[in-house]
Amino acid sequence: MSEHLPQPCDLLIEAGHVVPVQPHALVLQDTAVAVRDGVIVGIGPRQDMRVRWQAARVVSRPDAVLMPGLVNAHTHNPMTLLRGVADDLPLMTWLQEHIWPVEGAVIGEQFVADGTRLAIAEMLRGGTTCANENYFFPDVQARTYAEHGFRALVGAVVIDFPTAWAKDSDEYFAKAESVRAQWQGHGLIDVALAPHAPYTVSDANFERVAAMSAQHNLRVHLHTHETAQEISDSIRDHGVRPLARLQRLGLVNERLIAVHMTQLTDDEIGLCAEHGVHVVHCPESNLKLASGFCPACALARAGVNLAIGTDGCASNNDLDMFSENRTAAILAKAVANDATALDAASTLRAATLGGATALGFADRIGSIELGKQADLVCVDMGALETQPLHNVISQLVYATGRQQVSDVWIAGVSKLENRVLVDMDIDGIIANARQWRDRIATIRG
Amino acid sequence: MSEHLPQPCDLLIEAGHVVPVQPHALVLQDTAVAVRDGVIVGIGPRQDMRVRWQAARVVSRPDAVLMPGLVNAHTHNPMTLLRGVADDLPLMTWLQEHIWPVEGAVIGEQFVADGTRLAIAEMLRGGTTCANENYFFPDVQARTYAEHGFRALVGAVVIDFPTAWAKDSDEYFAKAESVRAQWQGHGLIDVALAPHAPYTVSDANFERVAAMSAQHNLRVHLHTHETAQEISDSIRDHGVRPLARLQRLGLVNERLIAVHMTQLTDDEIGLCAEHGVHVVHCPESNLKLASGFCPACALARAGVNLAIGTDGCASNNDLDMFSENRTAAILAKAVANDATALDAASTLRAATLGGATALGFADRIGSIELGKQADLVCVDMGALETQPLHNVISQLVYATGRQQVSDVWIAGVSKLENRVLVDMDIDGIIANARQWRDRIATIRG
Repeated sequence: MSEHLPQPCDLLIEAGHVVPVQPHALVLQDTAVAVRDGVIVGIGPRQDMRVRWQAARVVSRPDAVLMPGLVNAHTHNPMTLLRGVADDLPLMTWLQEHIWPVEGAVIGEQFVADGTRLAIAEMLRGGTTCANENYFFPDVQARTYAEHGFRALVGAVVIDFPTAWAKDSDEYFAKAESVRAQWQGHGLIDVALAPHAPYTVSDANFERVAAMSAQHNLRVHLHTHETAQEISDSIRDHGVRPLARLQRLGLVNERLIAVHMTQLTDDEIGLCAEHGVHVVHCPESNLKLASGFCPACALARAGVNLAIGTDGCASNNDLDMFSENRTAAILAKAVANDATALDAASTLRAATLGGATALGFADRIGSIELGKQADLVCVDMGALETQPLHNVISQLVYATGRQQVSDVWIAGVSKLENRVLVDMDIDGIIANARQWRDRIATIRG
Repeated sequence: MSEHLPQPCDLLIEAGHVVPVQPHALVLQDTAVAVRDGVIVGIGPRQDMRVRWQAARVVSRPDAVLMPGLVNAHTHNPMTLLRGVADDLPLMTWLQEHIWPVEGAVIGEQFVADGTRLAIAEMLRGGTTCANENYFFPDVQARTYAEHGFRALVGAVVIDFPTAWAKDSDEYFAKAESVRAQWQGHGLIDVALAPHAPYTVSDANFERVAAMSAQHNLRVHLHTHETAQEISDSIRDHGVRPLARLQRLGLVNERLIAVHMTQLTDDEIGLCAEHGVHVVHCPESNLKLASGFCPACALARAGVNLAIGTDGCASNNDLDMFSENRTAAILAKAVANDATALDAASTLRAATLGGATALGFADRIGSIELGKQADLVCVDMGALETQPLHNVISQLVYATGRQQVSDVWIAGVSKLENRVLVDMDIDGIIANARQWRDRIATIRG
């Protein structure tokens, strides 16, 4: 009889629908997921699970979809404090007359910590449980993410000019190594190298990045092929397009997270597929900055691992992965001139398991599978805006708003409960953001 | 002293920010709007307004933006019941194997009334106060809109084949005339002619539409220049592109509401500007169905009145004008290859006054001006997702979600109060939508 005795677990989540992402496009009805020590230990029909598991806590959401947490595969989260500070401007005016002067006046540990905290609250309320971060002061970011139990791959920036974070190349690499060593083996935080872009990083620095990436098996998080200008400048300065230069420098491999990629030839798409390069599609940023159109469908069909990111709030202007997924799915169709391009299930995969794979986290997160971390999200499908419910995955991608996210767990720890943030002082965060607004308004005069 | 005595009004709305849309791009701080008999009778600084007006009711929203209600300038609202019924399919498979068979089995007065009611609830919760409707059974739609005090221009469909609504051309026109006569002079409902599309309406029927439109000063609501196929079919069948054919038939004038318009030459843009044609941009539908890219910025810069619509829920899949505005604004930049294209204020204008102008309602709605109807919306900017608040209009277009709409009035009548629908049974509407889902699931087998 002992095999029929219920086993103890910490949490049993029962949902009207479960979308595990793996197997692809599957929707399970009336299913429960058991969590113990932060890990998914059981998935099965609700009635069976109640018998099989003795749960310390049961969360029942009959109108909800339970799905893996979303992975925002490209962000600059401290810049959440610059949301809407400048819009509708040509790139260089935007950067030189608005973003850089403001950033220069405010950047520092406090700005990075406060911006990251605001972003964490926004991400949790929108069903995002993991971010691929790319900004200065990665040490402060890592600390802030860890403090709030939020999963992140934190990029140690490398750039050819001095900033508040480091004065020269040696300091960028020394600090990168220090942050890497500090967070090695942490359950939620990993560190990547984040050379800024082909037009701001020299061959010598790219070679150091390549060597360090190979030595420690680090991801390389890079903005590239973002605009036509970047391509023509690369040809002018290096004789080749950026991807060819990166290949020459030893960076085109399965550790490369290539962000934006709006300018790609068929050969370059083939090169990415062949070498296992991960592509992060940021459709809303690409549209808003008039950067171009990423051939997301062509990349996916060529076998390239596709992930989705919001980019920073100075250029998006939110961290809404539901909106980003929807934009990715519908834009792909117009770009491919094919209404079947990037269907709903493939889009949802890109935003979860695709992101996890890009970040090197696919063994841990990205799908609801036994043995994976319980990074889970409940989405209320009972809302009027998602009625009637003919197709769960279609509804998640094409009709659901992030405000329908009701509950969020990271590694089995509750982060959002019935829309209320757990252990985060939302009023304090909002008050703090208002103080930054006033300070920035003073700077701008 | 009598000039200083406060005057009576029904409603005084005080808001932290007021965006009247006209004057363009203006943001008023700490302002109040007075409403009497459904009409805006006062706009001024909050403190003054408390002295000048004796209001039966004061609504105070210090963290909100007060703005004109959004005008959804192209919808098929009964199809809200088909939300997500089929996606990610080529146009003809989608239509012939999914939409038409389901529609054929369910269409009728009850389907139209129930779908319209579900849509009204969704629109109100998202800050939309006026719809440009295009579907069968316009009589039922008009009745349902009027019953809920929702403003609409209802299109009497004309199409060359028999449907559940009418068996032949004579019946389409007879019914159009009957609906027109019935609703003439109604405060909220107007009637337009809605010839379906150039590929489904004969020259003879277009000529009857043109004559009836001229006789009664009716808007003509038409899908056109939606796809490349439509253009090539028109050249094959009529020797000219659709706009040239429409011009020949007397339809290119200030009564034409041309929807989609993804295929336009510079000459055609000039033609629209010269003749006062209104263009409704439906960016999300155009992307999702891979129809093409409307040159929204070029149209606006040429002086064409631009409006924004969601299209129906079978092809979008929502009635979210905040999302549609954002998509319109960011997509325009990539299409124009110019980050200054369709800036936030111009987008907001298109979604309010632009829509009102297209529908022939600009004397009544579309902006917060003395003498206009009080179709008003409060949007909560205190939400974490719109912090910090550097720029009100940018935030409304680029960062605000429809769930931040707190209050809605149509002609001064409260429709949504602190997110709660007034006089609408939301649970009953959801239960009804679920019944339709079950019925449609049975039909599909």
